[in-house]
Amino acid sequence: MNKSISLQTNGQGLYEITDEVIALVSESKTIDGLCTVFVQHTSASLIIQENADSSARRDLEGWLNAFINQIDFDFTHTAEGSDDMPSHIKAALTAVSLSIPIAHGRMQLGTWQGIYLWEHRRGRHARSVVVNVR
Amino acid sequence: MNKSISLQTNGQGLYEITDEVIALVSESKTIDGLCTVFVQHTSASLIIQENADSSARRDLEGWLNAFINQIDFDFTHTAEGSDDMPSHIKAALTAVSLSIPIAHGRMQLGTWQGIYLWEHRRGRHARSVVVNVR
Amino acid sequence: MNKSISLQTNGQGLYEITDEVIALVSESKTIDGLCTVFVQHTSASLIIQENADSSARRDLEGWLNAFINQIDFDFTHTAEGSDDMPSHIKAALTAVSLSIPIAHGRMQLGTWQGIYLWEHRRGRHARSVVVNVR
Repeated sequence: MNKSISLQTNGQGLYEITDEVIALVSESKTIDGLCTVFVQHTSASLIIQENADSSARRDLEGWLNAFINQIDFDFTHTAEGSDDMPSHIKAALTAVSLSIPIAHGRMQLGTWQGIYLWEHRRGRHARSVVVNVR
Repeated sequence: MNKSISLQTNGQGLYEITDEVIALVSESKTIDGLCTVFVQHTSASLIIQENADSSARRDLEGWLNAFINQIDFDFTHTAEGSDDMPSHIKAALTAVSLSIPIAHGRMQLGTWQGIYLWEHRRGRHARSVVVNVR
Repeated sequence: MNKSISLQTNGQGLYEITDEVIALVSESKTIDGLCTVFVQHTSASLIIQENADSSARRDLEGWLNAFINQIDFDFTHTAEGSDDMPSHIKAALTAVSLSIPIAHGRMQLGTWQGIYLWEHRRGRHARSVVVNVR
């Protein structure tokens, strides 16, 4: 089963999609299997991170920007905006696909794990994530 | 097939789980398939790295700490200890899931590839890794 | 189905393998499934990145070298050359496996996504990538 999740982002940050993925796994009626989440973009990525304390996600976002800003490098690929090339780098350093085992009809996420789309660009963007359940 | 590997870590570093994963693939009697390894935590991660020379793994660990220390950023998420937020960052930059093809009954790891849990926290932690073979 | 793609690299950079992977997916006649790409090395990695403008890939390569050079750390694992340990780090921070959903007989890559082997070493290297289609 392949289904898409569409998101409208509004600036940099983590957008949780755990409930949408859980719903698709449930809909597939898969008891034992594998759920793969794939983002169809190169300036947004995927991350599984702590779902308990939002300060962890804010620090993650703030730190990643600080890190990119502190590396001294002159980009040549600037036609799509000053936040485009840093976004490609952030996407390259995080994940484009994640695979989560399914057992007893449930994704085997740990207690504190949530699934997020990580938007790296400023402004509004339409994002698409494909969820594959087998 | 889904099976769990439980580890007790004792400080930062790479803990090899290659033999445990090979044993589970063998137990599953899968001839052609896919083995997915998934870590159920957000302050430890997974890595496939050189299994030959331990100095490579020590440099990896030392370098990652040096890198995080050299980025100037004040964390706000400090309630769980000063090593918690750096651990989330390290986990975000490495892997939560790895998928390795199985052919002729064997995982298709390269000659020098070993599978490791990468513990990012100090102190002792109970860690769980789910191995899915299909 | 498991098939290997062999590449001869000639220095650092991104080597596109999208067409080779598409051909293997097509050959497998899979309508709905999952394509997993796995690199059998620890000093080269995989990346899905923008396939439109080569300046984005050059910036990615240049930035990654600038980043590694700007972190102050003395490597001890130097027996295999001064570019070996930086290559292991780059591989650790990018991907060893990528999984792409297949629907209607086609990999669900986004419009601007290409699949690349990322060679991190200087010199010439024979590289092997395993493509698993299920």
